[in-house]
Amino acid sequence: MSQAKPASRPSADATRRNEASRRAILSAAFELAGEIGYDKLTIEAIAARAGVGKQTIYRWWPSKGAVLLDAFLMLSETGETPGLPDTSDLEADLKFVLRATVDELADPRFDLPLRGLTSAIMHDTDLAATYVERLQGPIDDLKRRRLAAAQAAGQIAADIDLDVAIAMIWGPLMDRWLLRTGTLTADFADRVVETALRGLRG
Amino acid sequence: MSQAKPASRPSADATRRNEASRRAILSAAFELAGEIGYDKLTIEAIAARAGVGKQTIYRWWPSKGAVLLDAFLMLSETGETPGLPDTSDLEADLKFVLRATVDELADPRFDLPLRGLTSAIMHDTDLAATYVERLQGPIDDLKRRRLAAAQAAGQIAADIDLDVAIAMIWGPLMDRWLLRTGTLTADFADRVVETALRGLRG
Repeated sequence: MSQAKPASRPSADATRRNEASRRAILSAAFELAGEIGYDKLTIEAIAARAGVGKQTIYRWWPSKGAVLLDAFLMLSETGETPGLPDTSDLEADLKFVLRATVDELADPRFDLPLRGLTSAIMHDTDLAATYVERLQGPIDDLKRRRLAAAQAAGQIAADIDLDVAIAMIWGPLMDRWLLRTGTLTADFADRVVETALRGLRG
Repeated sequence: MSQAKPASRPSADATRRNEASRRAILSAAFELAGEIGYDKLTIEAIAARAGVGKQTIYRWWPSKGAVLLDAFLMLSETGETPGLPDTSDLEADLKFVLRATVDELADPRFDLPLRGLTSAIMHDTDLAATYVERLQGPIDDLKRRRLAAAQAAGQIAADIDLDVAIAMIWGPLMDRWLLRTGTLTADFADRVVETALRGLRG
């Protein structure tokens, strides 16, 4: 093996160490947010939990919001390629997904980090753009794909704008969750799906 | 006029001064949030803008979020009793209201304070409860009243849950606004109304 290597290429070991540190930082951020909430979350606390120096974090991320976004991205990359269930029963499939979302949001270990991510995005247009491009965008693609299949099967009217449909199915849940304007229940999830499908005119 | 008065009753002058200070503080908080955003907003800056001491603010409010909530309450109390338009054309009335909301959200002087209020509520369950009880609740009552009139006129199906209807009509707009997941336009507002009324099955 040649001894000469470009000064700018990190060794395989260094890359592995960096990746291990990175994953430790992201896990720590997610867990801590789930324990103490976003307001109290600090770069220092994340560093301590991850066993790295504070500067290591600041080298890679400009803010705790950015760390949290990458934590969610890391979570979304693990496991199989997700996709909305397709049993060809649109109503059943949407109810399944929305009920699963209600369950997830009821767990403080997920609820608190997601609140943190949401408030970081709300105030930071750059972070919002990254969030839309790398996290929400791909998730919405999966939703759009399921709804398009339903549209092709004649279960959704042909001239329905699927982005509006996505907003109508998921928007009510997220809005109610965020502002705690009502209890989030499987029953509410079911009724959002039923009402979105049949329309208010009934 | 009797000179003897209970020690605990403030003089009419003191009450007027308190009210003037209070309104100055709330106006200052709202304006400043609209100029610099919620993250940078501080009690100190609000006090300076309002021309009061910092302790005056802390005496009455526990946090900048609480000040902002009262600022929105003060705004909602000025003017005539609001109500959703009722021309008996439900679709036109809802489009009017949603388009007005889109315009309001496009103005940074309203957008930024509302983002601030929203993030304060998201992380503070006490503030959220106060928000729901004193601000969002009454607003939702007006929405419910308009939809109930439409239901009585047969324009909305009799068995539709009006709280779900409210979430479906307003949820998409607020969700898209908050997370900047798409542009907020009159066209989007119109299509949300049309799709909510006709349903996805079409």
